[in-house]
Amino acid sequence: MNKPVIVLVNPQLGQNIGKAARAMLNFGLTEMRLVAPRDGWPNPEAGPAASGADMVLDGAQVFETTAEALADCSLVFASTVRRRDLVMPVVGPEQMAKDIHALAPASRAAILFGPERSGLETEDIGRADKIVTVPINPEFGSLNLAQAVILLAYEWSRGAGEALVQPTDKDMEPPATKAELDALIGHLNSALDEKGYFFPPERTEATQATLRSILTKPGWSERELKALHGVIRALVKA
Amino acid sequence: MNKPVIVLVNPQLGQNIGKAARAMLNFGLTEMRLVAPRDGWPNPEAGPAASGADMVLDGAQVFETTAEALADCSLVFASTVRRRDLVMPVVGPEQMAKDIHALAPASRAAILFGPERSGLETEDIGRADKIVTVPINPEFGSLNLAQAVILLAYEWSRGAGEALVQPTDKDMEPPATKAELDALIGHLNSALDEKGYFFPPERTEATQATLRSILTKPGWSERELKALHGVIRALVKA
Repeated sequence: MNKPVIVLVNPQLGQNIGKAARAMLNFGLTEMRLVAPRDGWPNPEAGPAASGADMVLDGAQVFETTAEALADCSLVFASTVRRRDLVMPVVGPEQMAKDIHALAPASRAAILFGPERSGLETEDIGRADKIVTVPINPEFGSLNLAQAVILLAYEWSRGAGEALVQPTDKDMEPPATKAELDALIGHLNSALDEKGYFFPPERTEATQATLRSILTKPGWSERELKALHGVIRALVKA
Repeated sequence: MNKPVIVLVNPQLGQNIGKAARAMLNFGLTEMRLVAPRDGWPNPEAGPAASGADMVLDGAQVFETTAEALADCSLVFASTVRRRDLVMPVVGPEQMAKDIHALAPASRAAILFGPERSGLETEDIGRADKIVTVPINPEFGSLNLAQAVILLAYEWSRGAGEALVQPTDKDMEPPATKAELDALIGHLNSALDEKGYFFPPERTEATQATLRSILTKPGWSERELKALHGVIRALVKA
């Protein structure tokens, strides 16, 4: 499984470096590289903002130039808005994730993020293979650094599959059998019959069909059917 | 295109409400509802944190209870970690987005988020149709409120494009709203109460929660709920 390196170019606030680390680790990314962080490194503001993602900060490597930070990487994405002045492929997060997962395990991928205010400079974007752009509201685009990191880390993990816990419908109780459902429907029909619900008689069949369709829909479990038997018994009690 | 309502239950910090608004608007979601915000509403801390997403904050509606906030919604997701003690479907963000996009245009979907520290309470989760869980690193799960909002809003927007070309299921009746379902549950509970079903009294709440979960599952239509009201009326008749 190929985990991309997260490269922060000239990050300004230590707090934002910490938040980026936290965003990464939520989705299993652990390797962070810093290119000429404005306030040096280590930065005491980073730790508290990482909310426990210290292993990412402790392992962060510092480089003087973007070129050095990317030296061992084979596939590099620049996270930025679309740049019409640059002739480069532009992909969405999903395609980026696919490209990274398709990479040979020994190869290294990286995602470049620019400084908080100004974003990546043209020269740094030029070191990437592709631009990755999160498709945001054209009338309100306001992603901060940690948010851009978390969205791309999330997309990477979506494709990573097995390593992460996938929610499933396993927490559901298995549905009851049709025989058990028929028993509930029979119970309800006879209770309703005693109360004179099915009137006029020639409508009985259609009404029962409607009730059956209502009760078939939920796919209740055995336990749930037991509870409903109890409900009917209670309701008809004198 | 069906845009889910974002419902924040008992949010603590105004700053976090602002950040959630910003996260929403990045992906085109505009409708926010607040259930009993701790520090009242409006909250002067929210605006600056919204970084320009004022239209979301200005339009935010405040409710006293979760039930009221969800009254006109037909499909509700509770954003929380997997709860092994609750028998409810658990889906990932992608499936949630698919479910929302498959909803009839006139129906309303909602996503519930709990207070920052404690998360959603069991009772509020019980008002949802499904739990939505972002699959995060099992060894480091640390998503804050705005991050959870942005990831789910992003997933919704990813599917929004595709949803436009998807055929709708015309054979489905639109699901009833939560207010209509609450009315059925209320009818059943009072009928059962009269019959002395809730015994011993200290078990009443748990039993009612079980019945609610059984009846929330089917996603019945308005027509089906009407039929069930008739069934209860008939059963309790002397």
